[in-house]
Amino acid sequence: MTAALWWLEPCRQPDARAEAAALARQAQLTKPTGALGAMETLAVRLAALQGREKPVINNPQLALFAGDHGVVAEGVSAYPQAVTAQMLANFVSGGAAVSVLAREQGMPLRLIDLGTIDPELALPGVRHLRLGAGTANFAVEAAMTAEQCRAALQAGRDSVLEAQAAGCDLFLAGEMGIGNTSAATALACALSDLTPMQLTGPGTGLDGAGVRHKQAVIERALVLHGAQLGEPFEALRRVGGFELAALAGAYLTCAQLGIVAVVDGFICSAAALCALRLNPSVQPWLLFAHAGAEPGHAAVLAELGAEPLLDLGLRLGEGSGAALALPLIKLACALHGSMATFSEALVEDRS
Amino acid sequence: MTAALWWLEPCRQPDARAEAAALARQAQLTKPTGALGAMETLAVRLAALQGREKPVINNPQLALFAGDHGVVAEGVSAYPQAVTAQMLANFVSGGAAVSVLAREQGMPLRLIDLGTIDPELALPGVRHLRLGAGTANFAVEAAMTAEQCRAALQAGRDSVLEAQAAGCDLFLAGEMGIGNTSAATALACALSDLTPMQLTGPGTGLDGAGVRHKQAVIERALVLHGAQLGEPFEALRRVGGFELAALAGAYLTCAQLGIVAVVDGFICSAAALCALRLNPSVQPWLLFAHAGAEPGHAAVLAELGAEPLLDLGLRLGEGSGAALALPLIKLACALHGSMATFSEALVEDRS
Repeated sequence: MTAALWWLEPCRQPDARAEAAALARQAQLTKPTGALGAMETLAVRLAALQGREKPVINNPQLALFAGDHGVVAEGVSAYPQAVTAQMLANFVSGGAAVSVLAREQGMPLRLIDLGTIDPELALPGVRHLRLGAGTANFAVEAAMTAEQCRAALQAGRDSVLEAQAAGCDLFLAGEMGIGNTSAATALACALSDLTPMQLTGPGTGLDGAGVRHKQAVIERALVLHGAQLGEPFEALRRVGGFELAALAGAYLTCAQLGIVAVVDGFICSAAALCALRLNPSVQPWLLFAHAGAEPGHAAVLAELGAEPLLDLGLRLGEGSGAALALPLIKLACALHGSMATFSEALVEDRS
Repeated sequence: MTAALWWLEPCRQPDARAEAAALARQAQLTKPTGALGAMETLAVRLAALQGREKPVINNPQLALFAGDHGVVAEGVSAYPQAVTAQMLANFVSGGAAVSVLAREQGMPLRLIDLGTIDPELALPGVRHLRLGAGTANFAVEAAMTAEQCRAALQAGRDSVLEAQAAGCDLFLAGEMGIGNTSAATALACALSDLTPMQLTGPGTGLDGAGVRHKQAVIERALVLHGAQLGEPFEALRRVGGFELAALAGAYLTCAQLGIVAVVDGFICSAAALCALRLNPSVQPWLLFAHAGAEPGHAAVLAELGAEPLLDLGLRLGEGSGAALALPLIKLACALHGSMATFSEALVEDRS
């Protein structure tokens, strides 16, 4: 039985001995010290997290959390709300970006529909949780009931538990939800000193006037919910969304179980910030895949103290940036584990 | 029979029709326009270069050019010169970074020893060209004779011709040569308005005093060779090196044959600048893998108008950065070629 406030339970601690062993190994590999830059620090960090001198990624899995957002009624998105469900179907049939990236890398894709505007939606291979026909409009009321928010957190947890049972050693997560840059912006502002002025961006493609309107809607919502936003669960419930809660729940569960989580773009980073506010011990387990093009992403990454691997101007979501970082993460492990040492290769080290 | 000044012959032109078709396809894929950032521009660029709407990378190959440098006599490197040949042996036995990266990606590795201080060096699987026992010390005389420089350019050409005969559709190149950041710095300065003060860095790991000494050696060499450096072949011959010339020859041949070349770090970028000065039509064929940690790399990339894919703080060479960029290049093609269009997936486009 899962405890009522399971997300508050402590996360695993990185293994200092494995980290020291990995650092010592890096210093002996046939290259100048530090010459592989971020690949070296990544391998050492994975060693600490996996608790072994030579970390391995043999079974990465990606979970994709989808949900609709009541705030779309305020006219904050360039795309119609029906696209959330249509894209779910596209994930199933293999035509979406993340489908291609997962297929090319032989990575299983887990699809979770937390609640879209079509309560009848039934797609093969998708877990439909039907927590609601989308969230409520957070510009006029709380996005979720406490029960919905707990269920969404639990859905994230369940996905990680399933992945763990299937031998997952790296958990990637993505999201789909028309309107979710609005929820992510409101949530990140609620959890930090950042403002809608700093974080509001075009999302799927608003023009300047659209962005200003979206910013005004978010500002109004933050005033409406006011001091209630000071507590992170309440912030998540009031201005977050189903998939944001599921992501936060997934990250926290990964950290409690000792599985490294790869964080995708702006939405996922807002969920990571929420996870961090709920339980700061989650931090070492979050590996940030990329700095995206959505203007608020850099600020949220800075708030998280993140040093993302890639900077490709991505702004798609779906976990696509996490999936694009996967080859580098695997290659960092391969380099660390398979390169020869100076003595093995009979190469002279610097004097 | 190769013409005497073959490197001056025009390079292939990108295919504007394929580029337009690829751009039109990108606009129809199930994602907001531009949401895949650099992955989109890369796919469209590869379409133009390969002359087909959907570019493919099925057969990437990596050539590694090694050579020694007489300028090491000036005390410009943290590692002993014997390491060049020792690392060649490490490439053969599979323990070097690039060996691991090539093996993990199933990519053939072509090893070319242009001339190390050991004229007897004979390693299995290495083509030993023995153009000299390393170059001459460019701080006191020209690094190469005209004949050596032409032979090194031709060695690069031959590697690309071999790769082409083996069906190569993406050419990656790397280098190994103790002392070659000094040669690359001198060459890049000779070919631009950049100065040794801006470009000189620690290479494999000089300390501050070592960097200042290295800078002084390069400044002295640039004064010694003076106005002779105004012509790019002469600059290459006088202050370049065997592997720098081979790289330049390889890039030019790729561009003449219509094969995209992936440029690695600081040394390779200096060779690319040399190729560009020898024959400006090479430019579209050079795909820059990464911005490295060697301080001069950013300036040389700016001189080349390059927009590198990765920024991982690498400073190893060997083609390691090019090999690390390979998964992204392949995934850019896969996304472009395999994602569904809005109409195929029955997803509504923005209104």
